[in-house]
Amino acid sequence: MTEISLHKPYPAAEVAKWDYETDVAVIGFGATGACAAIEAATAGAKVMLFDRNSGSGGASALSGGEIYIGGNGGTDAQRAAGFEDRTEDFAAYLKAAGGPCADEAKCDLYARESLNHYEWLKAQGVPYRGNYLPGKVIEPTDDSTLIWSGSEQAEPFRSLAKPAPRGHVIQHMGWGGGRPLVDILEASARKLGVDIVVDARAVALIRDGDTICGVVMRIDNENRFIKANKGVVLATGGFVMNEDMRRRYCPETFKINSPIGDKDDGSGIELGIGAGGDAVHMEQFFTTCPWTIPEPQAYGVFVNEAGQRFINEDCYHGRVSRFAFDQLGRRVYLLLDMAHFDQPLELAGISIAGTGETWEEVEQELEMAAGTLSQTMAFYNKHAAEGKDPLFHKQQPILTPLDQGPFVALELNFEHSYFSFFTLGGLRTSTDGEVLDHTGAPVPGLYAAGRCTSGLPAWGHGYSSGMSLADCTFFGRQAGRKAASA
Amino acid sequence: MTEISLHKPYPAAEVAKWDYETDVAVIGFGATGACAAIEAATAGAKVMLFDRNSGSGGASALSGGEIYIGGNGGTDAQRAAGFEDRTEDFAAYLKAAGGPCADEAKCDLYARESLNHYEWLKAQGVPYRGNYLPGKVIEPTDDSTLIWSGSEQAEPFRSLAKPAPRGHVIQHMGWGGGRPLVDILEASARKLGVDIVVDARAVALIRDGDTICGVVMRIDNENRFIKANKGVVLATGGFVMNEDMRRRYCPETFKINSPIGDKDDGSGIELGIGAGGDAVHMEQFFTTCPWTIPEPQAYGVFVNEAGQRFINEDCYHGRVSRFAFDQLGRRVYLLLDMAHFDQPLELAGISIAGTGETWEEVEQELEMAAGTLSQTMAFYNKHAAEGKDPLFHKQQPILTPLDQGPFVALELNFEHSYFSFFTLGGLRTSTDGEVLDHTGAPVPGLYAAGRCTSGLPAWGHGYSSGMSLADCTFFGRQAGRKAASA
Repeated sequence: MTEISLHKPYPAAEVAKWDYETDVAVIGFGATGACAAIEAATAGAKVMLFDRNSGSGGASALSGGEIYIGGNGGTDAQRAAGFEDRTEDFAAYLKAAGGPCADEAKCDLYARESLNHYEWLKAQGVPYRGNYLPGKVIEPTDDSTLIWSGSEQAEPFRSLAKPAPRGHVIQHMGWGGGRPLVDILEASARKLGVDIVVDARAVALIRDGDTICGVVMRIDNENRFIKANKGVVLATGGFVMNEDMRRRYCPETFKINSPIGDKDDGSGIELGIGAGGDAVHMEQFFTTCPWTIPEPQAYGVFVNEAGQRFINEDCYHGRVSRFAFDQLGRRVYLLLDMAHFDQPLELAGISIAGTGETWEEVEQELEMAAGTLSQTMAFYNKHAAEGKDPLFHKQQPILTPLDQGPFVALELNFEHSYFSFFTLGGLRTSTDGEVLDHTGAPVPGLYAAGRCTSGLPAWGHGYSSGMSLADCTFFGRQAGRKAASA
Repeated sequence: MTEISLHKPYPAAEVAKWDYETDVAVIGFGATGACAAIEAATAGAKVMLFDRNSGSGGASALSGGEIYIGGNGGTDAQRAAGFEDRTEDFAAYLKAAGGPCADEAKCDLYARESLNHYEWLKAQGVPYRGNYLPGKVIEPTDDSTLIWSGSEQAEPFRSLAKPAPRGHVIQHMGWGGGRPLVDILEASARKLGVDIVVDARAVALIRDGDTICGVVMRIDNENRFIKANKGVVLATGGFVMNEDMRRRYCPETFKINSPIGDKDDGSGIELGIGAGGDAVHMEQFFTTCPWTIPEPQAYGVFVNEAGQRFINEDCYHGRVSRFAFDQLGRRVYLLLDMAHFDQPLELAGISIAGTGETWEEVEQELEMAAGTLSQTMAFYNKHAAEGKDPLFHKQQPILTPLDQGPFVALELNFEHSYFSFFTLGGLRTSTDGEVLDHTGAPVPGLYAAGRCTSGLPAWGHGYSSGMSLADCTFFGRQAGRKAASA
């Protein structure tokens, strides 16, 4: 008898008894799985939705519930705030954000369909207050809708696509909108009669000839054989919680210490690979250390251990953090003057490394050679006073002289600070959510979406908030609908 | 009938007629395949060795024939030149060079066995003059043996492992020792009765149950079924010549334009994955632009478009080039004074971007903001005169002031200069050359070595010359011997 394994589909011929039969089996009950289930059920399919936890949520429920939306002239919230957002600009931004890993077909499709997707989310019951919150915020601390959530206004993005804020946040007081977002999607799925089974972990796909036709679920310590006549949708998340997979595919992440996820052990990726699926861009990851909180800190300047700037700091906090990660040495410094210093967020693990009445004194306190940090700041301040950043083209108002002493250098330390991270690589899928094999052909019966795939947020240096949930919800829907149509 | 495919082993049960039968089938006749065949034949196995070209060579024959060797107190050439090379230092260097991708078991084994491997190479007939050529050379222009071929003397490596030169080059006048190296290995294989079949391309593995037991070769436009009773060794090289694979796994390389390889289309990696093998570190690549030729240029200083230095330039030319590649923008500049300028190598595609009587003039000519490049050089020169590099800890004698005007800025342009590159990621293998599946277990009957695997040269930022051929020849032998013992 064939072994039950993540790494090899179990032969349907060896299934002694099917415990359950459905049309579409969805594995994973975060936002991706919920959206897949809703669409499959809407299309008339019988759907079973499984999660290894005792309820819905996944990594989506740990998020801010922010979704990257725009194009087609803009959403209600964008237009009310005076932002026209053309589809071409939206697509161009998505591609620039995907960098060398961009899936152009996914970017183009999502740019075209994003407004319809927004309407769909509202139709599920997701509330949006509809207002715009300006400034540099990670998530709204009130219940606002629209924020700048990427590097749209920063170079090189502003030169590639006309900037617009596109982070659309569920109406929810304070951080943590991901949980209510999933709750609403869950209610929608339940209303449609989706059969939800929790405390159920996928342990193998089942294959009949070349076609995935079911899944073995571990429920109550027993293997249960689920027949899925139309297919299986993987919605299991990334692999940030699997150290062995990280060592093999994404070993750079061992430089930092705060994985975020919810049992994101890569099991869906392994199931997909075992069925012949191709996994791509597995080395990519998102990281951020929340250095823009409190907001005055967003006006700071970063230098590496050599006292050099390395990025226009008006980029998205995660892009800045990702470039910080790339610097040689163990830390980078965030430089602030008294006009912009405030106590850093406790959670961030950011410490005060040096202070001084002048930048020369700060430099000395950090034991940097004379004429490094101090020169960097003299040059920066001189040009910032004229509204210029000749090195990295940072823009006003974030571009401002830091000359109101005393001065402070905050340390973001790769080992000790809170560099949260999650993986971005995964199964290669079509725009319809079909898992593709190494020839680019679909693996029959197998679909996937969200962070067990490589999607819109393909490149760590270009990530913007809301991109992953956009990818999860939109391509989750695509996968569910395609499976139901099989 | 099952399709003949790289992506899925062909069932042995469907083979109508075996055209040939052997013990070990080796695919690819570069240095890896030759060494695998020699060891398998030496162990008493019947061996067939295939290449899709009309003769031996592969990418190995395009190389300098340099092999990274040391440890155990040093080779004859190292000891004659006064370098003791302890195994611990050798292993520490290999691990540092592998960075986050290092395979520690392979590093440890090779550090222990490297001297024996050197003796084995000599026993095959590979000649070594035995002398040491000091200085900063890419390959000897004479027939010398021992050169510095990595970043051993540069930080951070010099602090992690006692430096020793370890690049051992076949005795051969001038560049291009790879071709005679393969010729010698070929002669050795022929003497042992290895059955060499050229113009033969692997199109599928053949599997009996879980065990790889043969290979389908395309010969004279027909599929030939080869039974390999003890196993198949993949020695097919990397995937630098396969744009589709690069797009999926190593898309950063599209920033540069000079792949080097010989039909390195990744077919062996695809064959291995199709048989259940795990491929790791697929995003890694080596690149270099030969900026240390002529040798005085090795004394130059690199700056990025912001006029900042980014690395201690006494590192191996490939490490410096890899960090150059990482810089924002389209180019980096190599700064030289008249004491160190010479006409750059034509091949390198390095152009003169700016000149001046002072560094300020060069800065102006490059249209950089005043106080960028000029400040960088003033700071550098001041400290270099005192034998110090506070930013990156470059060492003398490469560390020297560049103050003999006039001055010149050479441009290394990512699009137009010769940034040669090849891929480093591939199948995950044991130290015995067994292809490992996603659980870490061997795929029965399947072996691999060289650039279709991830081995000693695992990390682009740490590559040193001779590491790939060390990996190819040593782990090629391991794979051949293990296959023969099956």
